[in-house]
Amino acid sequence: MALDLKKRRFTSHVVGVDQNNEHLEKALELGIIDERTEMNNAIADAELVIIAVPVDKAPEILEQVLDNISPGQTVMDVGSIKANICNRVAQHSNRDQFVATHPIAGTEYSGPDAAHYYLFDGKVNIIADKEASSPDSLSVVEKLFKTLKMNTIYMDAAEHDRHIAYVSHLSHITSFTLGLTVLELEKDEKSIFNMAGSGFASTVRLAKSSPDMWAPIFQENKDNLTDAIDAYIEKLNQLKKQIESGSSEATHHTISEANQITRILEGIELKNQAATIKK
Amino acid sequence: MALDLKKRRFTSHVVGVDQNNEHLEKALELGIIDERTEMNNAIADAELVIIAVPVDKAPEILEQVLDNISPGQTVMDVGSIKANICNRVAQHSNRDQFVATHPIAGTEYSGPDAAHYYLFDGKVNIIADKEASSPDSLSVVEKLFKTLKMNTIYMDAAEHDRHIAYVSHLSHITSFTLGLTVLELEKDEKSIFNMAGSGFASTVRLAKSSPDMWAPIFQENKDNLTDAIDAYIEKLNQLKKQIESGSSEATHHTISEANQITRILEGIELKNQAATIKK
Repeated sequence: MALDLKKRRFTSHVVGVDQNNEHLEKALELGIIDERTEMNNAIADAELVIIAVPVDKAPEILEQVLDNISPGQTVMDVGSIKANICNRVAQHSNRDQFVATHPIAGTEYSGPDAAHYYLFDGKVNIIADKEASSPDSLSVVEKLFKTLKMNTIYMDAAEHDRHIAYVSHLSHITSFTLGLTVLELEKDEKSIFNMAGSGFASTVRLAKSSPDMWAPIFQENKDNLTDAIDAYIEKLNQLKKQIESGSSEATHHTISEANQITRILEGIELKNQAATIKK
Repeated sequence: MALDLKKRRFTSHVVGVDQNNEHLEKALELGIIDERTEMNNAIADAELVIIAVPVDKAPEILEQVLDNISPGQTVMDVGSIKANICNRVAQHSNRDQFVATHPIAGTEYSGPDAAHYYLFDGKVNIIADKEASSPDSLSVVEKLFKTLKMNTIYMDAAEHDRHIAYVSHLSHITSFTLGLTVLELEKDEKSIFNMAGSGFASTVRLAKSSPDMWAPIFQENKDNLTDAIDAYIEKLNQLKKQIESGSSEATHHTISEANQITRILEGIELKNQAATIKK
């Protein structure tokens, strides 16, 4: 985000705060940040504070920022869960200087080395509970996402968390699980390595994702996510039963239904193509 | 396969047989085949017969080919299951003119329109039960896969079917199921479309695969596949239980374990890179 915002002159100076020293040094070296400092110095000087930390830590950091923020400053977070952080500061006297966002973009890699330009172009950003933010703070953050060429959608925080459990968190769960299942078999069966093709690679790609990021997301969105897993297991058992019963016709029908996901995938591809053309 | 084999002068003439008239016309139009004919004419004239049909139909077609084949001719199949077809012709007097193969390459698309050059380069091919094939027939088929720049591995048919259930068939099952789960939710919740990102797209890509191809594969590899699904559901329930119990540390540990799939994925990427360099 810092890379694109500087390239596109949204800002000329980005200050980094992190508890990981190596990441700070790397970010300086790569030109992602221009300066490193401590939390309280950073808050005092910033026009805009962006909180990008694991979702179980974000609420207390946001509280600390709101306690120390002055009029005219804005703070936003970019976490994959919105209800926990919105609830935590709902009664804070500076609540309206906070904007809750979720830019839906990323890869299976993390840390400053994984940063690259144009990650956000043409993708979707969510702003949650916008009515709790002041028009001024909202306008700063909307300008930021416009600079990143994202399409912003407004949504209730709880509604966001329910939907994202299905289209993002659940696919991470199924990838991790596929990885674990094959790894366990492979303990005794080395040859399985050679038999994995590009279809397997695509389906299991997200299993490379960081545990520091994802363990807290699963925890904080526990209720929605277990609903999604239950719905998934129900579908999986139905398909398994069809296969077991030898009903090739029923299996054929189920696969044809699943094929309708093409509609959704075409939507995603169109967005990405549009982003490539704009660049 | 026909495209690459002609481009690389393994053959100069490919004859197509199909029950689908449109596919035959399209294949002629695209230059994939040079001539269309009926089954018995094709068998009489061919040096090499390649059977590429759904895996529940392949055994009876193979039997028909072996019944009509002359000395010096060879027949191979390319199906994703090997035990059913090998068992079916085990006692056939011409069994040794048959070579059972599984070139592990493909996309989620099917039909002549989906054909493209270099699909097989650098990927893995399996030859099953090679000791049941004659040295002459084996040598024709090995030369074919060398022309396609594939790395051939030899394996017992039953062992092949057990392993492929985990690294190929199971990832199709999990993709179809993920597609079905999200589609059901989306019936009432249109906004879910907008929230699906590239991670979801990657994980659910295989859900576009053809029911005509996959329903028979699931059916014919039923026993191995239901074992694989059971192993997967067990892992999924373990992870779900960790999330439900609020044990972030346990979830973190599980995700770190799943991350080890990186080793396998790097192997797949290396193979694909090697293929790209060779071209």
